[in-house]
Amino acid sequence: MSQFDVLCIGNAIVDIIARCDETFLVDNTIIKGAMNLIDTDRAELLYSRMGPAIETSGGSAGNTAAGIAGFGSRSAFFGKVAEDQLGKIFSHDIRAQGVHFATKPLERTPPTARSMIFVTPDGERSMNTYLGACVELGPDDIEADVVANAKVTYFEGYLWDPPRAKEAIRLCAEIGHKNGREMSMTLSDPFCVSRYRAEFLELMRSGTIDIMFANSDEVKSLYQTDDFDAAVKLLGQDCKLAAVTRSEHGSVIIRGDERIEIEAIRVCDVVDTTGAGDLYAAGFLHGYANGRSLEVCGKLGSLAAALVIQQIGPRLQLSLADAAREAGII
Amino acid sequence: MSQFDVLCIGNAIVDIIARCDETFLVDNTIIKGAMNLIDTDRAELLYSRMGPAIETSGGSAGNTAAGIAGFGSRSAFFGKVAEDQLGKIFSHDIRAQGVHFATKPLERTPPTARSMIFVTPDGERSMNTYLGACVELGPDDIEADVVANAKVTYFEGYLWDPPRAKEAIRLCAEIGHKNGREMSMTLSDPFCVSRYRAEFLELMRSGTIDIMFANSDEVKSLYQTDDFDAAVKLLGQDCKLAAVTRSEHGSVIIRGDERIEIEAIRVCDVVDTTGAGDLYAAGFLHGYANGRSLEVCGKLGSLAAALVIQQIGPRLQLSLADAAREAGII
Repeated sequence: MSQFDVLCIGNAIVDIIARCDETFLVDNTIIKGAMNLIDTDRAELLYSRMGPAIETSGGSAGNTAAGIAGFGSRSAFFGKVAEDQLGKIFSHDIRAQGVHFATKPLERTPPTARSMIFVTPDGERSMNTYLGACVELGPDDIEADVVANAKVTYFEGYLWDPPRAKEAIRLCAEIGHKNGREMSMTLSDPFCVSRYRAEFLELMRSGTIDIMFANSDEVKSLYQTDDFDAAVKLLGQDCKLAAVTRSEHGSVIIRGDERIEIEAIRVCDVVDTTGAGDLYAAGFLHGYANGRSLEVCGKLGSLAAALVIQQIGPRLQLSLADAAREAGII
Repeated sequence: MSQFDVLCIGNAIVDIIARCDETFLVDNTIIKGAMNLIDTDRAELLYSRMGPAIETSGGSAGNTAAGIAGFGSRSAFFGKVAEDQLGKIFSHDIRAQGVHFATKPLERTPPTARSMIFVTPDGERSMNTYLGACVELGPDDIEADVVANAKVTYFEGYLWDPPRAKEAIRLCAEIGHKNGREMSMTLSDPFCVSRYRAEFLELMRSGTIDIMFANSDEVKSLYQTDDFDAAVKLLGQDCKLAAVTRSEHGSVIIRGDERIEIEAIRVCDVVDTTGAGDLYAAGFLHGYANGRSLEVCGKLGSLAAALVIQQIGPRLQLSLADAAREAGII
């Protein structure tokens, strides 16, 4: 029997979230809706211009791990924090959610990663990430027994930004596949795709990845086309299973020739889209690891995404398991 | 002309807020609705049992200072943080709100104060405060020119917990009154009143305090009676001006023989009561410092309190100035 349903690997980040108006993004040359990588100096500058904020544990794959545990599945997380106050907050929150998290924290600088997230009145989030301690994640941080005992190992494309995390991922794929497990990833961000397009394509085509998550911008960036359907068709040829989210238009699941359309859940008031994609993946993977149909997996993803965009921050305070029952999905 | 409308002085605290059920409070002997003071060991223990949380700048008088600035008044804050990540978060948030904050941070231990706040399903908050760096606040932290140039200096009764803050307050009262300014305080918490009843009564009867804020539990604790009206009458005799909040029953303002009843604003869904009293004081003092009638002061207090209990955490993300205009109060 597997010990874990899903292992998630990603940058361990504390989110610092504040509201701003559209002109703030323009004035500070922040690419709207994207994950902008920043260095120490820019982090200082942007923070000095940022309004009053709230802090919450974040990180794309960390949010997914927390969401999976929130649904009642057994999840684990690998990610690097430093031994500082933000690192303690990150570690506390993910463990308090019931996620196994034992990556050794960094004893020296740099400090724990943080992402300054500016939320515009339309609910869109624009992220500015200082990677900090995340740059130290490497193969030594892989708990081989956890990988071997997790039905699915899921990681974020963002891990191609720090220098040695990709080595850790290749090691995981080797261990996982040797143990009959599946590997999954998210393309993370269209600009991240631009940075590592060839490598991401190779991950799929070499069979390193079994399940791919993406949104429409990312899949179009991957295949350098404006034609969504063409991009999705190519994705279906490159990967055994893929789920592509389309914001308010729901999602599309592709497995071979099979194409399943999942409706989005209508949300009246989008407060903050932070974590929407991460929670979609959480719902999908919870269903998938528990042997649900792809349609149910997609519906669980839509539900979790719809809930998280109605609150500030990417970690849900309510029980996703209860929400799924109430929605009659499982 | 005065440089500041209101100067607020209090414990500089970062709030760590999580939901819990009623049994959690019982099992952990947390007094519901109160501010429970805790030491390092208990802080570690409670945090290990706490669910996933969010962090936000807090502290009673800090919330009031932020609220006053949110209304568009000029406010200042004195309070002690340490030079650590939580201290930087506190300093950033209060300055980003437009509050003057220049208290020198503590270079050594203890770390910045934090309050673990457990919010039960009824929206009530139960606080567990580790005072940390706040214990070092003393007369050296008083910026005399700010006190001399603030129309009202407002502080929290909680300042009687750290050892030397009361000396700082007595110094402020001296400077303030010498410059024709007014002094104001909040009784903070019924258990805080129990700890310092005689001193708080003396502060009023000696004329050190001109304006007193309290809630019904606190004023009843002050005069050791269950009779609200009797307690309010005694408060009116001891203090030139007082405002007593009564949760959903609104508030009562007393000045000599004058007694003004202010209705609460009906709130359908109380999310988290953290900051309700602090924001009432913010609204009241904003009105007071700008020469509004006591009725308008009370209404501004009710409005700010009603808004803050509909969100998580004590710092409002929306503009109180806009909210007051939209509500037609000013």
